[in-house]
Amino acid sequence: MSSTADQLVISSDPNHPANLIPSLCAKFWTLGWVTGTGGGCSIRDDDLVYLAPSGVQKELMKPEDIYVLSLKAQPPHPSPRTYLRSPPIYKPSQCTPLFLAAFTRRGAGCCIHTHSQWAVLVTLLLEQQGNSSSRVFEINNIEQIKGFGRGMTKRGNLGYHDTLRIPVIENTPHEEDLTEYLEAAMEAYPDTYAVLVRRHGVYVWGDNVHKAKTQCESLDYLFQLAVEMKKLGLPWISEVTQIAPQRT
Amino acid sequence: MSSTADQLVISSDPNHPANLIPSLCAKFWTLGWVTGTGGGCSIRDDDLVYLAPSGVQKELMKPEDIYVLSLKAQPPHPSPRTYLRSPPIYKPSQCTPLFLAAFTRRGAGCCIHTHSQWAVLVTLLLEQQGNSSSRVFEINNIEQIKGFGRGMTKRGNLGYHDTLRIPVIENTPHEEDLTEYLEAAMEAYPDTYAVLVRRHGVYVWGDNVHKAKTQCESLDYLFQLAVEMKKLGLPWISEVTQIAPQRT
Amino acid sequence: MSSTADQLVISSDPNHPANLIPSLCAKFWTLGWVTGTGGGCSIRDDDLVYLAPSGVQKELMKPEDIYVLSLKAQPPHPSPRTYLRSPPIYKPSQCTPLFLAAFTRRGAGCCIHTHSQWAVLVTLLLEQQGNSSSRVFEINNIEQIKGFGRGMTKRGNLGYHDTLRIPVIENTPHEEDLTEYLEAAMEAYPDTYAVLVRRHGVYVWGDNVHKAKTQCESLDYLFQLAVEMKKLGLPWISEVTQIAPQRT
Amino acid sequence: MSSTADQLVISSDPNHPANLIPSLCAKFWTLGWVTGTGGGCSIRDDDLVYLAPSGVQKELMKPEDIYVLSLKAQPPHPSPRTYLRSPPIYKPSQCTPLFLAAFTRRGAGCCIHTHSQWAVLVTLLLEQQGNSSSRVFEINNIEQIKGFGRGMTKRGNLGYHDTLRIPVIENTPHEEDLTEYLEAAMEAYPDTYAVLVRRHGVYVWGDNVHKAKTQCESLDYLFQLAVEMKKLGLPWISEVTQIAPQRT
Repeated sequence: MSSTADQLVISSDPNHPANLIPSLCAKFWTLGWVTGTGGGCSIRDDDLVYLAPSGVQKELMKPEDIYVLSLKAQPPHPSPRTYLRSPPIYKPSQCTPLFLAAFTRRGAGCCIHTHSQWAVLVTLLLEQQGNSSSRVFEINNIEQIKGFGRGMTKRGNLGYHDTLRIPVIENTPHEEDLTEYLEAAMEAYPDTYAVLVRRHGVYVWGDNVHKAKTQCESLDYLFQLAVEMKKLGLPWISEVTQIAPQRT
Repeated sequence: MSSTADQLVISSDPNHPANLIPSLCAKFWTLGWVTGTGGGCSIRDDDLVYLAPSGVQKELMKPEDIYVLSLKAQPPHPSPRTYLRSPPIYKPSQCTPLFLAAFTRRGAGCCIHTHSQWAVLVTLLLEQQGNSSSRVFEINNIEQIKGFGRGMTKRGNLGYHDTLRIPVIENTPHEEDLTEYLEAAMEAYPDTYAVLVRRHGVYVWGDNVHKAKTQCESLDYLFQLAVEMKKLGLPWISEVTQIAPQRT
Repeated sequence: MSSTADQLVISSDPNHPANLIPSLCAKFWTLGWVTGTGGGCSIRDDDLVYLAPSGVQKELMKPEDIYVLSLKAQPPHPSPRTYLRSPPIYKPSQCTPLFLAAFTRRGAGCCIHTHSQWAVLVTLLLEQQGNSSSRVFEINNIEQIKGFGRGMTKRGNLGYHDTLRIPVIENTPHEEDLTEYLEAAMEAYPDTYAVLVRRHGVYVWGDNVHKAKTQCESLDYLFQLAVEMKKLGLPWISEVTQIAPQRT
Repeated sequence: MSSTADQLVISSDPNHPANLIPSLCAKFWTLGWVTGTGGGCSIRDDDLVYLAPSGVQKELMKPEDIYVLSLKAQPPHPSPRTYLRSPPIYKPSQCTPLFLAAFTRRGAGCCIHTHSQWAVLVTLLLEQQGNSSSRVFEINNIEQIKGFGRGMTKRGNLGYHDTLRIPVIENTPHEEDLTEYLEAAMEAYPDTYAVLVRRHGVYVWGDNVHKAKTQCESLDYLFQLAVEMKKLGLPWISEVTQIAPQRT
C-alpha cells in the first residue's frame, strides 16, 4: 500500500479508525455479534467515514481492507465511485447507507450493526404479541438502562425508572432498502440511539466509539435479559410497585 | 520431519492447509464444535487433500499431525495405503470418505464437521415431530440465511425470504457408513452445502475455506436460534404475513 | 505521570492494586459482569483505597485511570476533594460509598460489584414470589456453597447442608442512595459477604482480593444454577431427604 | 525453589505434570469447571502423584503450588506427612483420596474433578425423578457417546447404540468422606470412567491425561445436551425406532 488513498488507512495509533474497526470487529465476533460475515461497524472522523467491506470474516479484518469515503461529497445514497479509498478485491458493505444515516441525521461518530441472536429473538417475541405492540421494544426498572443517553438533544443518561424504547422496523430483502425505514424510525423516535430490524439484528450508534460500543453492549445485555425473562414468565415492563425499602 | 512426504506439511505461510487446519480447529474448539476429539476439518488444494487424524485433541493439533492424500489416486473410499503422508502415531479420521464426497461430488475446497449441540438438538426436535417432516430442517425469513450460497450450479446467495433447507440423514454406528447416505442426500438436495446427521452433528462445505467456515458459522447460528425459538414457542417457518412497513 | 499522587498507581508488581484492578476488570468483562461500563471493583491496602473511575470500558482500564483515597480521612460519604489522586478526565464511581461500606463496616480488603444477569434474574424471580419471601435469596445442599465464609466473626466456611442467605435490597434511582440500605442489610445479616440489589446486580466482598473474587465467582455460579433450576422446576431449598447412600 | 523436593516440580517440558496441571486448570476455568477454587485435577506419573493444593484460584496456579506424593508409600487415605513435596503456604486438596482411588483401583493416569453446572443439574433432574432411577445417569443414541472407553478390562470405545451409564453417589459434608462411596460405585460399575456426585459435580478419569480430558469434555457435552433435552421434552433414552435410512 503506497498510494495517497492508502495513507488514509495506515497509522501506528491503535485508536485510528482503520485500526480500531478490525480490533472492535474481532471483539464483536467473540460476542456472537458478527457471525459468518454478518454485521459490522463504521467510524466517522470529522468528514471521513471508515467502513468494513462486505463479506469478510470479521475477526480476520485488516486495516488495508477498510473503505474510506467523504461525508460531504456524499449524495444521500452513496455509489462506489464516491469512495476516497476502495480495496480492490472487495465490495462495499450493503450497510453503508444505514451507517451514513446515523452520521448525517444524528451526528454519530460510530455505528455498530449486530446480528445478535438476542436482538433477533426480541423482535420475534414482539411479533408474536401481534401487530399493535410489535413495533417497539420497551423495558424499564433495570439498572443497565442507565447505560443509554437520554437523546441527541438532551443531556445525561436515562434513569432507572425511565422506560427504554427501541423502535423495530421490518426487514427488507435488500439491506440498503432498510435505509428509508431506518430514517423514518429515527424521525419517529428522535431520541433513540438504536433501531431493531425484525428477524435481522440491531443498529446502534453513539457520539463516539466509546458511546456506541458501550450502548451496544448495554442493549445486548438487555435483549438477552429480556429473552431470559420471557422464558421465566417475567414481564419486561413493571409498575414501580415499590416494595418499601426494608429497615431492620 | 525431513522426508519428501513431510515437505507437504511444512510451510511458513499461515494460510497453508497444514497450518490452517490446526488454527481453524483451535477456533472451533472454543465454539464447542469439536469437543472431546469429535468433529474435524479438511482442506483440498487442487489435487491434494489435507486431513486431521482420528482421536486428537483438536485445539492442540500441529501441522505434523496432518494426513495428505491425492484426490486423483483415490478409489471412492480410500484405504490407508493411498495416503501421500501418514503421521506414524495416528489413524486416519473416519470422516475421510465424507470429506472426500464433498470434494469429489461438489468440487468443495473445504469441509467442516461439527458435533455442535445446536445441530444435534435440531435433529432431535425434528425427530420428535415424526417421520414425515423429520428429514429436512427448514427455516425462512431470518437475515442470516443470506450467509448461504444458492447452490453449486447457481449464482449468488439465498435471499431473506428464501427457505433454507438442510437434509437430515440417520446416524450409523460406523462413521464411514454414513458416506452413502450423505451422497444420497447430496443428490436429493443438489444445491445444499450442508447435511445434518441425526443425533450426531453436521457436515458443511464450501468452494474454499472462507466459504465453508462462514457457511458453517451461519448455520450454527441458525441452529442455535432455532432451538431458542422452540423454547419460546416461535415457529421456524413463517408466512410472510408482512407487517406493513411503518411510516410515521 | 510524575506527581507524588501518580506514584500511588505506578508499580511493576502485577499484584499492586492499581495493576490488579484493571486485570481483574478485564477478566470480569469476559464473564459478563461489567458490561457497558456497569459494575466495578475496589481494593483496600491498609488505609489506601483504589477505585476505578465512573463510565470507563472495564476491559480497557489502565493503572493511570485509578482513583486513590485515604480511608482514615474519609467522612462517611466521601466527596471528590478527599481523593489523594484523581485522574483529570474522569469522575469518581457512584459505587464509591458502597465499596467504602464494605471496607469500614466489614474490614474487607476488596469489594466487587457486578451487573451479572444471573444476579438480576434471581432478584426478579424472588420479586415474582411476592413480598414476604422476596428479600433474601436462599439455597442449600449444593457443594459450591462451601465457597463462602461463615461470617466475619466466625471461623471457616459454610458447610454443604448450611443454607446460604444473601439479602436483597431494592434499587434506587441514584446508586449512592443505595448506601444506607446496603449498610442496613449488613446489620441485619452480620455474617453475609454479599448483598443483592433488585433489578441491578450484586455487591460481594472479602478479606482480600482472593476471597472477594472466589466468593463472587461461587455466588455467580449459584445464581446461574438457581435460574436454570427454576427453568427445570427444581426447588432452591431442599429438605435433606437423604437418599440413603448406596451400597453395592 | 532449590531443595530436592522442589526439583520434582521444575521442568521446562510443558507436558511435565507440574506444568500440565496449571495449564489444564486454566483451560478448565474458562469452561466453568473449576469456578471459585472448586474442582481440580491430578496426574499420576508411574509412582508419583501430582496434585493441586486446596483453595487456590485454578486459573492462576503455578508449578511451585503442586503437591507430590508417592503412590507406593500411601496408606489407603494419605495424611500430610506422606507428601514428598508440600508447598508451605497451602493445604492439600480434600479431593486427594478420591483422585488416589482412580489411580490405585483403576490404574488411571489422570483424574479430573469438575463442579460443572451441567453435571449438577443432571443429578438434580435424576433426584426429581425419584429414588429408584436417580442413582445412574443413562443416555444412548448420541454420537458423542463414542468418546468413552468401554471399560478398563475391555478394548475400544462405546458404540453409538450403546447406553452410557454414569453412577451417581450422594454428596457428603466432607469431601474426603465421599471416598468410600466413590469406591463402592467403582465396584458396582466396573467399566465406568466417571462418577457423578449429587449436587456437587463429577469425577472423570482415564489411562492418561489425553483420555481423562477428552472423556471429561465428552461427558460435559452430554450433560449439557441432556439438560437442554429435558427443557425441550426430549427423552435421554430412545428406542432405536430406526427411521429407515432414506433413499432418494
